[in-house]
This record gives sequence, C-alpha cells and structure tokens, in this order.
Amino acid sequence: MKFIPGFNDVAAASRLITPFLNHTPVITSRQLNGMAGGELYFKCENFQKVGAFKFRGATNAIMNLSEVERSKGVVTHSSGNHAAALAHAAVSRGVRAYIVMPETSPEVKKRAVSGYGAEITYCKPTLEARESTCAAIMDRTGATLVHPYDNFFVIAGQGTAALELLTRWPDLDVIIAPVGGGGLLSGTALAARGVNKKIMVYGAEPEMANDACHSLKAGRIIPSDNPKTIADGLKTSLCERTFGIISQNVTDILTVSERSIIEAMLLIWERMKIVIEPSSATVLAAVLANKELFRGKKTGLIISGGNVDLRKLPFNEIP
Amino acid sequence: MKFIPGFNDVAAASRLITPFLNHTPVITSRQLNGMAGGELYFKCENFQKVGAFKFRGATNAIMNLSEVERSKGVVTHSSGNHAAALAHAAVSRGVRAYIVMPETSPEVKKRAVSGYGAEITYCKPTLEARESTCAAIMDRTGATLVHPYDNFFVIAGQGTAALELLTRWPDLDVIIAPVGGGGLLSGTALAARGVNKKIMVYGAEPEMANDACHSLKAGRIIPSDNPKTIADGLKTSLCERTFGIISQNVTDILTVSERSIIEAMLLIWERMKIVIEPSSATVLAAVLANKELFRGKKTGLIISGGNVDLRKLPFNEIP
Repeated sequence: MKFIPGFNDVAAASRLITPFLNHTPVITSRQLNGMAGGELYFKCENFQKVGAFKFRGATNAIMNLSEVERSKGVVTHSSGNHAAALAHAAVSRGVRAYIVMPETSPEVKKRAVSGYGAEITYCKPTLEARESTCAAIMDRTGATLVHPYDNFFVIAGQGTAALELLTRWPDLDVIIAPVGGGGLLSGTALAARGVNKKIMVYGAEPEMANDACHSLKAGRIIPSDNPKTIADGLKTSLCERTFGIISQNVTDILTVSERSIIEAMLLIWERMKIVIEPSSATVLAAVLANKELFRGKKTGLIISGGNVDLRKLPFNEIP
Repeated sequence: MKFIPGFNDVAAASRLITPFLNHTPVITSRQLNGMAGGELYFKCENFQKVGAFKFRGATNAIMNLSEVERSKGVVTHSSGNHAAALAHAAVSRGVRAYIVMPETSPEVKKRAVSGYGAEITYCKPTLEARESTCAAIMDRTGATLVHPYDNFFVIAGQGTAALELLTRWPDLDVIIAPVGGGGLLSGTALAARGVNKKIMVYGAEPEMANDACHSLKAGRIIPSDNPKTIADGLKTSLCERTFGIISQNVTDILTVSERSIIEAMLLIWERMKIVIEPSSATVLAAVLANKELFRGKKTGLIISGGNVDLRKLPFNEIP
C-alpha cells in the first residue's frame, strides 16, 4: 500500500501553492444549462499557468522538496502538459528541471519546455527508453523523480482546483473531472469528499481509453494497450495509488465516444468562447450523454486545459 | 450636421443598460506584454451576450424607444452580429424585431436570429434589396430603424465597453478599438476623452478595407468598394456621424495586413485561450506592428467579439 494523500493534504497544498497560481475563473452558460437541464459550473484550468491544471501538482511537488532535494533538481519523462508544468514550476522556484522527451515530440512542445528553462534530454519514443534515460539522469544528478500522477504531492496539488471551485460554490451536488492516469480525478475526489461527504464524484473517460472504467469494474488495474483517442491527455492508465483513491471515493466512471468529445468541445468553444483541449471536453460530453444523472442538479466540471495545436486549424491557411 | 452623442450620453447608456449586460472580464497576458514591451489590458466583449459588443448599442437603442415606438417594433438589415444583437435586445425587452437578411446568409446566422425570436425577411444579397425591403417593412409596421452604427443611441451604447474598462483601469495611456462603420470606435473615443483628455485613441483597420484611414487623410468620406478581408465585421465604411466623431477624437487609424490579423488572432487563441473573431485581432496586430507607439505604456484593447465559424476548423473533421 503506497502512501495516500487525504483532504488535509489538498488543503495544505492549496495554502502553499495559491500565491504562485492563476486564480482561474468559474464560468457558466445559460445555453449549456438549458441543454443539460441543470446548472453547470466550469472551473477553467485552461487559464492556469502553462495552460493546464498540471501546474498545480507540479508546484506542490516543488514546494515540498527538502533543501537537499532542491539543490539536486527534479526529473520527469513526459511530452505533454506535465513536462511544461514541472519545468515552469521548478525553474521559477530556482530548481533545475531535467525533462526526458521522445525525440519525436512536436517542435512546439520542445520549444515550450526549453523556453521555461528546463534541460531536455531526447530519447527514443518507447517507454523503456524514457524510463532508462530518466534513471540515468537520476543516477548522474541525484534529481528527484516527479511522476505526472503516481506522486503524493502531485495528487494533492491537482485537488486544489476542485477545492477552489467548492469554496466558491459549496452547494454543488456533483463534480466531474476527466480521468487518464487519475491524478486529477483522485485529487478532485479527495477535495470534494472532504468538503461534503454526500457529493457525487464522476470521472469522464474516452471509450477508446477506458482502463479506469474496466479497472473499477474488475476490482484491479487493467491498463489500456496503446489507446487511440483525440483526448491525448487521457491515454495513460491508472496506477495503484490513483486506483486506490478512485475506487474508494468516486461514484462512477462515465465513458464517452470520440464523436461526443468533439461535439462537446465545439459547444464549449462556440457558446463559451474559450479554447479548451479535447481531454477537457469529456466532462461536458459525459453530462450531456447521461442527463438523468445531472438533471436539476448543480454540477461542477473541471476543464483541465487549453493546449491544442491551433496550427492545425484552418484560420492559418487563409492568406 | 447630424445629432452627435457625447460623453454624458455614454455614461447615461452605461447606467441604463448595465443590468442587462454581461460584465465582461479584462484579461492580461505576461507573454503578450513581453512581446509588446508594455502593459496590455484586453476588454473581452467576446464574452458579451450574443458574443459581441453589438449587444450594448442595440440594448441602448431599445431602452430609449418611446412607448409608441416600442409598440411598433424595430427593424434593421444585417447578416452579422448587429442582427443577432438587435433581435435579442428587442425580444427580451418585449419589443418585436424585424430583421432583413440576404437569402445567402449562412444557415447558422439565420438560426441564431430566429432563435432569439425575431421575424426574418429574406431578400436578394444587394444593398438596394436590403434597403427597399427594410423600407417596405417600416411602411407596413411603423417599426423604427436601428442602424448598426449610424445611430445616436447605438454609438453611445458601444462606448460603454471602454467606459467599463477605464472605470477598472483609469490610468490607461492609450486605447485602441477596431473600425468598420465606426460605431465602436466613435463610442470608445467619446468614453476615453471624457474620462481623460490626454488619452491616445487609435482605430485598427484592415489594409484591405481602409476607408477610415483614407477618409481621415482626405478630410471627407471615401467609402471602400466591396472590400475583401478576413475581418468580416470591418467591411462597412464610415458614415457622416461616425466620421465626424472620429476625426475630432481619434489620434490615428493604424492599418494592418491580412497576415498580421491572422497571426495576432493565433497569438490570442494560443496564449490567452479565448475564442475571438478576426475583426478583434486587428487591435493586437496594430500594437505589434507599431511598437514605438505603445512601448512602456498601458494600453486598453477592445476585443469586439467571438463569433467565428468553428465548423470550418479542423477539429470537427476528426471522426
């Protein structure tokens, strides 16, 4: 049994990291309320630093390093939002960040991570290469590994988004967050249950990467095998730590089709005028596909981030 | 000389219409500040009702109808944001709205206007057809014409966005707004000069639809002839009323290339995570192309709206 955070750890994270965060807005939309038949409160982490909630967990991990650990730096392997978040959180607090990225990562992500001042090491695009490169850096530098979700302080930090939402709107009946590796959903569940034992907590997961749904039903971890989904932040599978928290604190996992993710993303861009990434759209997709669960209720939705490759959108093809 | 509003009319509009508006946020971005070498304050009317500042002027026009005028309704010809704004402002205040639209208007715009409860009359896509259809409706119903910018109350209403921005940030050195027909820029200039006589006021205009720039240099109105620009909200030309206000109150018109509009739009979507329409991007494009005017200054930028056809963006092509 790994060491598991609780509500107090989320509350402690909130006190510690709030000065370094953007206080992200909670947005509502009459039109989307009408479609859902209930009240929806969107906590918009697309406006968080580095464009994603991941900055919360990364900052909490950095703030909890010992003096000796700080002096040796942190390391992670990721090509996504966690890499940028750890790089920015570490370097802006005077800590070195070593980021292992597959050499095939998009240029824009490489530039973002190096722009935050991290030291990038490229490796082959396989899990073995990423882990062995990471291990070699730890051997050489003594840097502390900060895993994107299998980490006590990261999970507690991710829960602070829900805690802020519930501080503003304490009478929510339901809260829903996307689930990939489970860091955000675990933190969200800990925050929500700590504020209100009766609150319903749902995870929203792509059908095409539904390991959390399978694992909860089976009572053991059944990882996804190379899943394909537009929700690129949700391809990872649960670990023991997040599986434990989620099985004890989450009401259910709602899976959503690729089409419904895209339709929900379009709705949010069109009606709310905000840029969100596909992973974030899973929560509205789940609400609209399961109206009986949310009708007449006050539901909080965690919008996880807004990092999407706009250069693939057509407005840059116009002269 | 047509009847011209002043600062007091903008202030009166603000008192009258504020209860019916979204109080839109002012957003800042460290990254964009860094690129501009100054402080930028974006007043985000993309979050206004109907997705554009046009709801302000339309609401002010409706609130200033006499009892007799209210009973007969309002009419306008437009296929853009003003049609939706007038429809919503009128019908939600219990006033009939007759909207003349070219039969070639996009389905999505037709649905939006009829969704707000307006009565649509379709006509051939020519200015003559639009004006004669409008005149016939006025003859038949006695409805009051609410022109999209050549209207005292509309101009005063549009100025309330800048007034809100300056109430929050009274020490702005510069304010910049897009210019098409000139309603927004006129209202913005009246608001800004009323708050602070020394404030610089710029208009941002596409090079491809640069009638305001030409007209100000010539000292008389030189309308654009069927201009082509991605900034579809800025194709209209000044009228006598807006030309008069702008020539007396605006420091200069800055023209921007099509490429710079698209680049600025991409920057705002990418860095600020908000959906804005091309017309709104002209203001940042003008700031970045004229850094010497804005360096070290506090600049307010009016983001006019967020209505852009997302179905032409590629994320809806993914399965």
